[in-house]
Amino acid sequence: MKKTILLTVFVLNGLTTFAQSNDEKNIKLFYKKALTEAKCYSWLEYLSNDIGSRLSGSASAEEAVQYTKRQLETLGLDKVYLQDVMVPHWVRGEKETAFILDNKVKTVVPICALGASVATPKAGITAEIIEVQSIKELKELGDKVKGKIVFYNRPMNPENVATFISYSEAGDQRRSGAEEAAKLGAVGAIVRSLSLRLDDFPHTGNQSYGDLPKEQYIPAAAISTNGAELLSKSLKKNPGLKFFFKQSCETLPDVLSHNVIGELTGTVTPENIMVVGGHLDSWDLADGSHDDGAGVVQSMEVVRILKNLNYKPKNTIRVVLFMNEENGGKGGAKYEEVSKEKKENHIFALESDSGGFTPRGFTIEADDANLKKIQGYKDFFEPYLVNTFIKGHSGSDIEHLTSKTIVKAGLMPDSQRYFDYHHAANDKFDAIDKRELELGAATMTSLIYLIDQNGIVLPAAN
Amino acid sequence: MKKTILLTVFVLNGLTTFAQSNDEKNIKLFYKKALTEAKCYSWLEYLSNDIGSRLSGSASAEEAVQYTKRQLETLGLDKVYLQDVMVPHWVRGEKETAFILDNKVKTVVPICALGASVATPKAGITAEIIEVQSIKELKELGDKVKGKIVFYNRPMNPENVATFISYSEAGDQRRSGAEEAAKLGAVGAIVRSLSLRLDDFPHTGNQSYGDLPKEQYIPAAAISTNGAELLSKSLKKNPGLKFFFKQSCETLPDVLSHNVIGELTGTVTPENIMVVGGHLDSWDLADGSHDDGAGVVQSMEVVRILKNLNYKPKNTIRVVLFMNEENGGKGGAKYEEVSKEKKENHIFALESDSGGFTPRGFTIEADDANLKKIQGYKDFFEPYLVNTFIKGHSGSDIEHLTSKTIVKAGLMPDSQRYFDYHHAANDKFDAIDKRELELGAATMTSLIYLIDQNGIVLPAAN
Repeated sequence: MKKTILLTVFVLNGLTTFAQSNDEKNIKLFYKKALTEAKCYSWLEYLSNDIGSRLSGSASAEEAVQYTKRQLETLGLDKVYLQDVMVPHWVRGEKETAFILDNKVKTVVPICALGASVATPKAGITAEIIEVQSIKELKELGDKVKGKIVFYNRPMNPENVATFISYSEAGDQRRSGAEEAAKLGAVGAIVRSLSLRLDDFPHTGNQSYGDLPKEQYIPAAAISTNGAELLSKSLKKNPGLKFFFKQSCETLPDVLSHNVIGELTGTVTPENIMVVGGHLDSWDLADGSHDDGAGVVQSMEVVRILKNLNYKPKNTIRVVLFMNEENGGKGGAKYEEVSKEKKENHIFALESDSGGFTPRGFTIEADDANLKKIQGYKDFFEPYLVNTFIKGHSGSDIEHLTSKTIVKAGLMPDSQRYFDYHHAANDKFDAIDKRELELGAATMTSLIYLIDQNGIVLPAAN
Repeated sequence: MKKTILLTVFVLNGLTTFAQSNDEKNIKLFYKKALTEAKCYSWLEYLSNDIGSRLSGSASAEEAVQYTKRQLETLGLDKVYLQDVMVPHWVRGEKETAFILDNKVKTVVPICALGASVATPKAGITAEIIEVQSIKELKELGDKVKGKIVFYNRPMNPENVATFISYSEAGDQRRSGAEEAAKLGAVGAIVRSLSLRLDDFPHTGNQSYGDLPKEQYIPAAAISTNGAELLSKSLKKNPGLKFFFKQSCETLPDVLSHNVIGELTGTVTPENIMVVGGHLDSWDLADGSHDDGAGVVQSMEVVRILKNLNYKPKNTIRVVLFMNEENGGKGGAKYEEVSKEKKENHIFALESDSGGFTPRGFTIEADDANLKKIQGYKDFFEPYLVNTFIKGHSGSDIEHLTSKTIVKAGLMPDSQRYFDYHHAANDKFDAIDKRELELGAATMTSLIYLIDQNGIVLPAAN
């Protein structure tokens, strides 16, 4: 019955005078379907609670590949397939230990190794520790850090309402802190967790040694924000105190893994491809329900809703579940590589990789004409309290896509709680609200639909 | 230093050409203060974790009165005082028990007595139970419910993005279900909890027997949504099954309690009063962190921020922490009664009583001229992602205020999770996010400031 109604509506779509009202009706239907009969929440429950953490190269990451492929196969899409990609295989090993050693008093603090870090010697490292707020401050210290552990302790700025700005401003400490400290002869790097909350969770995340020769690599770990506060306070009282940490992580040989791809083939211009996706891999400390289990199941829900309503897209709509966003970005890069080989034409890509919270809008990567065109859809989203359509980074996986004409967007959920969970042991299924997740899926479906219906503005031929 | 800067800005306020830019700067400062040095979260921690649930008439409600008064006294306001008000004193008594009795198989289900309900007989009630979706359906059954328990099972509609609409649509079952069932000779009423989630928490809330004589009162309780689903399924298989429940709640004599009031006296038109408030009482099943501990501490934060910045309001800004919103509304009524006696002139009232979630906007109760005027402030709020300024109910405590010229508004936080916690045992401090709470306080401060600066549109004299 519902199918018939929708089909009638679509038949009317050719009539410009009815177009807006039909779009409104269809978007209303997408939200209704998402809030009443979506599968994204139960998919995520399985992904999180039955499969668990999905770090690239792990058995559970491969399990997630097979599970999501099977689920996509139940949807009646035109194609479902895997795309091979070699991914890094870093393993954490034994749980890390760390303590502050202050006049023979040991105080244990929670740490976790950062991605791609090397291990400490088996017995751990004990050394003086020197606090800095920035890489600039480190460089000014020069030789003084030699033989010591460097402690990066610049907190995320609480003043930004958009917490991703604060994350990006503080991120260099985690990404390059160890590399820069190693260049000056430090023996280890401890980085304040990238979280706006004071708590006991260390937050992992990737770091890189850049071009350093391997023998200069030093172990790098994140410390919980409470731990960082305590360490900083202790250092003010006793700058000569020592810090101990021990971790046994290592990088194993690369592993064959996969992007998971499903497709609704276009009925008018199948050669024009629209991507909707998130990333299948997660960090290893929890099941990654927000990062990015949410984005994965929302992207699957987009094609499920459209298919269930018997929607016949003009363009090819492809759901892509990328592997290895967290520590290598190999899935995104491989997708683009294959796409180039096949001379595919991508017109649009949408990523959800900012958590499963209430959708607030989209960050849009486009020229002014397309930005304006998408902003012109704002009224459609107002009934659903989706209000923010701004220029901004779309997503790490789709940043590899470089077709000349492509327009990209990222779902922008409410960001206040995201960094409470990000890359930490509490990014678990119980941190997900079913309705917030579903509203995100409906919001994504609506934008995919509007762009499929109305296309993008092509650059003027020169 | 910061004080000096702000004062300079206010001196400039007289210059219309700079007005907008000063307002922008001041609002930015309110958000900064809220996100970096607010006290609302630690106040709420005390209110929730040290004092706990605050049902009207309880010792802890009185403790909350004294605590918030003491805290307001530390802020250097011009006045802090209590306003006497007699409140109902309903007590739950022993924990309720209930089970489905289906062919001698007992299945325990979670229930809780509804506010103002009478107890069951000491041994409990066992009776057949009949499911209805509405009071209308009940009335059609007529005599058939005699001697039975009536089970109201119409779920909140998941399709509304604004969950308060669904709450209001389903609320008659809880509010009047027992009264209507009693009129037809039923012996008890069991109401599906008003929540959008399937879980095991029964959600209490007030109900009324209307004009029924006391001897006709029947006990009323809420059942968890999972319990309601199970009961409904069981009834489909065996319509003759029985239901048992037992509760020992009672209404004791009224108790003297208080509204807590603090004031920054106006410097230009002190006779014009602006209220900002929430309600101090909560239900008894948890500490009521969202309902309405959040609104209480946010309202206190508004005057704290303004006072700390040495802001000299044109009008009198009064923070009012109302008692007894949940089961009587006596605090709001008393406040209006006293205000009328004193011939006070209220120009504006703002209530926060929709949870401590990310602020999304305001619901505004005003004539078209004032609605338009407030909507004209939207641009000020856009940097903080506060986008929704719509006509709507402001708040239960301030609904008593009836000055001819008053404009009223309610803070409108994100509502997706509100009914997961509302009136249930999980409405606790750990469900509060510090930043979301603080953003609400900043948003409220900004509106209070704008209205203090710019006034309201007075009705044309006739």
